[in-house]
Amino acid sequence: MLKQDLKAIIEAADRAITAEDFDRLMDFYAEDATLVVKPGMLARGKPAIRRAFEAIAAHLNHDITVKQGEMTVIDGNDTALVIMETLLQSTDGNGVPTTETRRATYVFRRGESGKWLCVIDNSYGTSLLDVPPAA
Amino acid sequence: MLKQDLKAIIEAADRAITAEDFDRLMDFYAEDATLVVKPGMLARGKPAIRRAFEAIAAHLNHDITVKQGEMTVIDGNDTALVIMETLLQSTDGNGVPTTETRRATYVFRRGESGKWLCVIDNSYGTSLLDVPPAA
Repeated sequence: MLKQDLKAIIEAADRAITAEDFDRLMDFYAEDATLVVKPGMLARGKPAIRRAFEAIAAHLNHDITVKQGEMTVIDGNDTALVIMETLLQSTDGNGVPTTETRRATYVFRRGESGKWLCVIDNSYGTSLLDVPPAA
Repeated sequence: MLKQDLKAIIEAADRAITAEDFDRLMDFYAEDATLVVKPGMLARGKPAIRRAFEAIAAHLNHDITVKQGEMTVIDGNDTALVIMETLLQSTDGNGVPTTETRRATYVFRRGESGKWLCVIDNSYGTSLLDVPPAA
C-alpha cells in the first residue's frame, strides 16, 4: 500500500538524518530534487541538498532526531503528495533541548524503475505563505 | 517564469469553474489526476473530477467565484508544488453569501509536450491532517 511504503521510506530517511549518513540519505532524492532549507532558501539538486543537510547538522550540534506523526497521502499520475506532521528534536547553541512540530508537504515521484523518489522536500508546508516569497 | 505561468493557468481554471465550462476546465488536468473534493473524499481521473465539479456547482447554487492570493512555487524534476491562498465566494442554500479562505497545495507536472498539467488538486492543504484520513 502506497501510504505504508512512503511512510517506511520517510522513516528510513529520518534515521539517515539522525545518523548523518548522507550517502544513504541522498538515495531517497531524485537527481534534480529541491529541498526547502528554510523559508526563502532552496537547495536544488543532490550536491546542494547534501551540503544543506551537512550545514543543518553542524548548526544543530550534530543532534537531530526527526519523527513523523499523522500522515495523509494523495496520489495521481505516478506522483504523490505527502502531508505529514514532522517533529524535530535537537539542541540549540546553548545546549538546551528544543522541539519543533511542522506540517510538512513532500512530493514523491515513481521513476521508471518503480522506485519512489522525493522530488520536493518542503517541511514547512503551507506556512511558507507566512513570509515573503523568495525573489 | 514558472510562477507566472502557473498563476496564469490556475486563474484560467478559476474562470472556467465560475463559467461552469467543464470541458475547458478538464484541459488543465492530467488524465489520471486526483482532486480532493473534501477531506476524506477523492475524485480520481478526469471523468470523476468532472462529475465532482458538476456536483459542487449544483451544491453551491451555480454561484462560485474562486480567487487566488499569496502564492509560492517550488519545483524539481519537472514537478511543481504550488502553495496558494484560495478565496472561495459562493451562496449557501439560504441565498446567504459565504466566503472561505484556504491554503491550497497543488501539484503540477510538465508533460512531454512541455505543457504543465495539474496532477493533484488539494485546496485543503495541510488542514487535511485535522480530520481522520480516508480509509
